[in-house]
Amino acid sequence: MSQPAVFVAERRVEFCETDAAGIAHFAAIICYLEQAEHAFWRHLGLSVVQALDAESHLSWPRVRVECDYRGAAKFEDQLQVAVSLVKLGRKSLTFSFRVSRQSELIAEGQMVTVCCKVQPNRPLASVEIPGSIREKLQPYVQPECGE
Amino acid sequence: MSQPAVFVAERRVEFCETDAAGIAHFAAIICYLEQAEHAFWRHLGLSVVQALDAESHLSWPRVRVECDYRGAAKFEDQLQVAVSLVKLGRKSLTFSFRVSRQSELIAEGQMVTVCCKVQPNRPLASVEIPGSIREKLQPYVQPECGE
Amino acid sequence: MSQPAVFVAERRVEFCETDAAGIAHFAAIICYLEQAEHAFWRHLGLSVVQALDAESHLSWPRVRVECDYRGAAKFEDQLQVAVSLVKLGRKSLTFSFRVSRQSELIAEGQMVTVCCKVQPNRPLASVEIPGSIREKLQPYVQPECGE
Amino acid sequence: MSQPAVFVAERRVEFCETDAAGIAHFAAIICYLEQAEHAFWRHLGLSVVQALDAESHLSWPRVRVECDYRGAAKFEDQLQVAVSLVKLGRKSLTFSFRVSRQSELIAEGQMVTVCCKVQPNRPLASVEIPGSIREKLQPYVQPECGE
Repeated sequence: MSQPAVFVAERRVEFCETDAAGIAHFAAIICYLEQAEHAFWRHLGLSVVQALDAESHLSWPRVRVECDYRGAAKFEDQLQVAVSLVKLGRKSLTFSFRVSRQSELIAEGQMVTVCCKVQPNRPLASVEIPGSIREKLQPYVQPECGE
Repeated sequence: MSQPAVFVAERRVEFCETDAAGIAHFAAIICYLEQAEHAFWRHLGLSVVQALDAESHLSWPRVRVECDYRGAAKFEDQLQVAVSLVKLGRKSLTFSFRVSRQSELIAEGQMVTVCCKVQPNRPLASVEIPGSIREKLQPYVQPECGE
Repeated sequence: MSQPAVFVAERRVEFCETDAAGIAHFAAIICYLEQAEHAFWRHLGLSVVQALDAESHLSWPRVRVECDYRGAAKFEDQLQVAVSLVKLGRKSLTFSFRVSRQSELIAEGQMVTVCCKVQPNRPLASVEIPGSIREKLQPYVQPECGE
Repeated sequence: MSQPAVFVAERRVEFCETDAAGIAHFAAIICYLEQAEHAFWRHLGLSVVQALDAESHLSWPRVRVECDYRGAAKFEDQLQVAVSLVKLGRKSLTFSFRVSRQSELIAEGQMVTVCCKVQPNRPLASVEIPGSIREKLQPYVQPECGE
């Protein structure tokens, strides 16, 4: 069985992201997860906001995020954010993230996003993930524990 | 059995917190949870950063956050963030949050914080929650489901 | 000659706005200016985003900001942001801000915004400030130095 | 006369930095200036926070920022932030920034920072810029207009 692919985004801690405790604020880490996800889409040759036609586009609103903080990151630390998928559903994705500073773990998180069609003057509607996108995501799906 | 107390913080969505999807960014909601927690500490006559003596203070670093997004909040929406406790541990707290716009639910989240002593030139050390603080928190602890 | 009116917004420094220097980050202060401006619009019974009809609205994009930092604000400091106008132009406004913690000055800034009409599928176009809005702003215009 | 050096930092607009007007929020641009300044320090082999000895370090608090917005940047735009110096004072620096998207100008700003010594339990004190740092900054000083 081949190993699932992992995409790694690099991120330096910026000063405006630190807090008075001297470390990257916990909500900044949540933004790092999103930014790594967006870099992952670009890595696939796509974007988290993908035009369908002149009027409408696909987007991936997040419906859940969770994050466990295992260490602290400081100003100018160079972090690695590893992105993979723990679930590729019919209409939704569950991303898994590991934020580390070399071998030291800083945070682990998951995020659930839903494939939606955005059209002018129409409510956001969830849609099935198009086959062409599903195909590009497949290599990043981790086998479930126990499989 | 008396009802557990709930503290409610009011929060208006600021423009800098919105994103290009026209709604409060999901990480801004995470900040609302923290801000409501801090307002809760002030409501108790305390602060999330509490001096112990001239040299040291108590602080509550967060080790976990999770949030489910149920609706969208827009610029200038007036939100209510209800704060209660689902667990009052020996050294840690598990907060529960409900973010709503009147009767409409926007998000539900939980956050785990650990009681730590901060001293100069010493690593952060978790400590038992002082009795005087425990007493003030007790009324906000929700009974577990099934109890 | 009567004194020009001044609107004062209250703002508490939130933890996520502090930085590793232990103070409110300088860009957070810029957001305070904007938030005070938006509170000022609400105080006038308006909004910085004002519907004109079903399709279009007025908005006030900022074209310039400047800020001098005179002191430092810390977590949970309660600040006052005083808003007045130094220029009420044909199409633009120049706001003046004083951020203080009681009698202590924290920052002084100015911001220039332009009255624009926003319409779907049309570029943003600057327009004359409507008379009804001009009338509400007039009391907040400071006399120029030397007048 | 040789041309002054210019340092250029690359910056992609992240989604959390956009606002409901669909563009990078004006305060996010202020953060871009700071991040470009910090990248500039690293480019010189230094950091905006520079250890002097075990107890103290040099830091550069900002005392003034100004920015003129000339265009709008959107999500995933790749921006260039050009950094140079318009004044190298005895104790302070005046940085000049040009934010552009290839040939299109997005914003122009200036920032004044003061060389300060940070010591535990001592108030922040401005100090003369050390000669070794001054030497590294010199090539980036732009000649004044008219010279």
